[in-house]
Amino acid sequence: MGSEGEKWGFQGNEEVNAASGMTIQGVLVKLMENLKAVNEGKPTIHLGHGDPSAFPCFRSDTSSENAIVDALRSSEFNCYPPAGGILSARRAIAEYMSRDLTCQLSPDDVFVTAGCTHAIEIVISVIARPGANILLPRPGYPFYNARASLSHLQVRHYDLRSEQDWEIDLEAVQALADDNTVAIVVISPGNPCGNVFTYQHLKQVAETAKKLGILVIADEVYHHLNFGSKPFVPMGEFGSIVPVITVGSISKRWIVPGWRLGWIVTNDPHGILKKCGVVDSLKNYIIVSQFPATFIQVELNLSLLEDISDDMDFCLKLAKEESVVVLPGSSVGLKNWIRITFAVEPAYLEDGLQRIKAFYHRHACMHATTQ
Amino acid sequence: MGSEGEKWGFQGNEEVNAASGMTIQGVLVKLMENLKAVNEGKPTIHLGHGDPSAFPCFRSDTSSENAIVDALRSSEFNCYPPAGGILSARRAIAEYMSRDLTCQLSPDDVFVTAGCTHAIEIVISVIARPGANILLPRPGYPFYNARASLSHLQVRHYDLRSEQDWEIDLEAVQALADDNTVAIVVISPGNPCGNVFTYQHLKQVAETAKKLGILVIADEVYHHLNFGSKPFVPMGEFGSIVPVITVGSISKRWIVPGWRLGWIVTNDPHGILKKCGVVDSLKNYIIVSQFPATFIQVELNLSLLEDISDDMDFCLKLAKEESVVVLPGSSVGLKNWIRITFAVEPAYLEDGLQRIKAFYHRHACMHATTQ
Ligand SMILES: Cc1ncc(COP(=O)(O)O)c(C=O)c1O
Ligand SMILES: Cc1ncc(COP(=O)(O)O)c(C=O)c1O
Repeated sequence: MGSEGEKWGFQGNEEVNAASGMTIQGVLVKLMENLKAVNEGKPTIHLGHGDPSAFPCFRSDTSSENAIVDALRSSEFNCYPPAGGILSARRAIAEYMSRDLTCQLSPDDVFVTAGCTHAIEIVISVIARPGANILLPRPGYPFYNARASLSHLQVRHYDLRSEQDWEIDLEAVQALADDNTVAIVVISPGNPCGNVFTYQHLKQVAETAKKLGILVIADEVYHHLNFGSKPFVPMGEFGSIVPVITVGSISKRWIVPGWRLGWIVTNDPHGILKKCGVVDSLKNYIIVSQFPATFIQVELNLSLLEDISDDMDFCLKLAKEESVVVLPGSSVGLKNWIRITFAVEPAYLEDGLQRIKAFYHRHACMHATTQ
Repeated sequence: MGSEGEKWGFQGNEEVNAASGMTIQGVLVKLMENLKAVNEGKPTIHLGHGDPSAFPCFRSDTSSENAIVDALRSSEFNCYPPAGGILSARRAIAEYMSRDLTCQLSPDDVFVTAGCTHAIEIVISVIARPGANILLPRPGYPFYNARASLSHLQVRHYDLRSEQDWEIDLEAVQALADDNTVAIVVISPGNPCGNVFTYQHLKQVAETAKKLGILVIADEVYHHLNFGSKPFVPMGEFGSIVPVITVGSISKRWIVPGWRLGWIVTNDPHGILKKCGVVDSLKNYIIVSQFPATFIQVELNLSLLEDISDDMDFCLKLAKEESVVVLPGSSVGLKNWIRITFAVEPAYLEDGLQRIKAFYHRHACMHATTQ
């Protein structure tokens, strides 16, 4: 009921509220409220979150700042990126990730995301289907639980063994999985336990996943943030045993979480993810979590055209014959219209319009009536 | 079946693929493929998309570039933002949007997003519930259809009347709506028709929505990109008639779609959206589409403590008594542990640990056994 007694047809979303409550931020917000109510005056010490970037001693390297300034001043990157990211960025990430791998990654293995958070959202959304379940570590990073719940993906927890360097209890993993299990999430270096898994342990994880027929989602957002003598081993090294989707970002290693730059990388030399349709769906999800339009709109008078059946046919033939791309109106709900962008360099637009004219004259009816 | 005959438990996602096919980008990708296959050599003219930023004549103002460089060089914005965005940004957007309004907006009315695309995703996800439907314009911007379909929100199209300046057919709107209708999307200036609705027409829209008890989602991503003599009127002007959620971004007016900065603004002087729980759910959705963690992890030995029941109780009392925030382990699946961030300035950490020590001594059992 609204303020004046009207009945309103909209309301909050309990599913979203519940998912939010599962996250670290949800808990921190609750603690912060407790704080404010009671303790004014006394300066707060916040040892709860995981963001060191506010402290001058954790400032990132200026070379990364310089790279951003150059990109900005060039004006070359003001545009909408293609789905999956700009090629030079995908190539740079592929090269960077390949340094730790025996096998070389290609830019086609890389999807650029708005941080690892966005990468997790994309992967979870794509693999979810009715009845499916996913294996998550406990202790773990609760954002996975929140996204799984939003995607109606059932969560099953496997334990990390505190008495054994927080390694995965692989027997428990096998007992938990069934025919509806689609993936296991492996976080190394781990949050919150700081565990760094060995080559041998990760290989066992891969073999277990292969046996179960499930995908490995490797969260390596803390890659190379390992202390002590244990080397960081990327899960992708075992992509020839089982398909591995690695998610990561620049947030932690470069201490710039606010820059929101992350990635999804497929480690899949046998092309299983492509065959199973997962790669296409990753691309498609990115399209629906991004996109574009400054135009004129023209109605086609098909009676003036000899061999054009509709707007889609017009656009496909125009692309084929004249290399000019215009948008068929049917894609925006306006059948037999076309949408022509004019927010381009004038000479470019003139060239395009000339070619459309030539196309029209070639396809015009001999005795067209201009009603 | 995988390459070696194994059965894999994961697959592509048909729902995601179908949603992607609805978007403008999905159609453009199809046209581009047609192009490449046939016509090598001939330079392509792309009049299909809506992104002028690639052309030097559409370069944005350098003052916005300077502002970004300053923010970057200050190192003050490398951090995770609070959910909803940094206060100074929310305040700037509130002031900017208020220029066109009789009524003043506050920073609390503003949620910062990764472009208008992200804003649409958030709003649609929040208002969706089983059985609900939404009214979308035809012709329209098909990203709404894609997101509605991912959220299982049924779509009903109302027509824009080409013979009447593409105004909304309000009789059709009333005929389409029923008890399960939650919102109507109004795009002005419009994509793809370029329509700019008058004060009078928007007021009628508000009155119709009020009568139907539904929310108005005003897409003003093209705000102030109106040509000719018609002035731009923001839908938010009618927020006292019906709650209006305005979505927008800097992508179009400043020609920087790649910067991904947008907003959700609630125009709701009667506080109806707050009462209905929509504002809370917007905040909560933003938390699950973003977030954070560099720590040590400590197991609490509760037998040493007199009046602490568990980790949450420890953290709540620590916040209350010492203004120190640490994360209860139960929020990451590790009951009766606590997570302490050490990625902070050393002096700050020392102060925090001193206070935790004081807290411990105050709550320690008199005859604690150090097992
Ligand atoms: C009507 C409409 N809304 C929203 C958007 C998305 O804008 P943004 O770049 O801010 O995500 C577009 C982009 O073309 C649009 O045409
Ligand atoms: C395990 C884990 N994965 C992902 C993330 C999200 O990282 P990003 O800042 O790249 O979104 C975090 C952040 O704390 C994390 O701890």
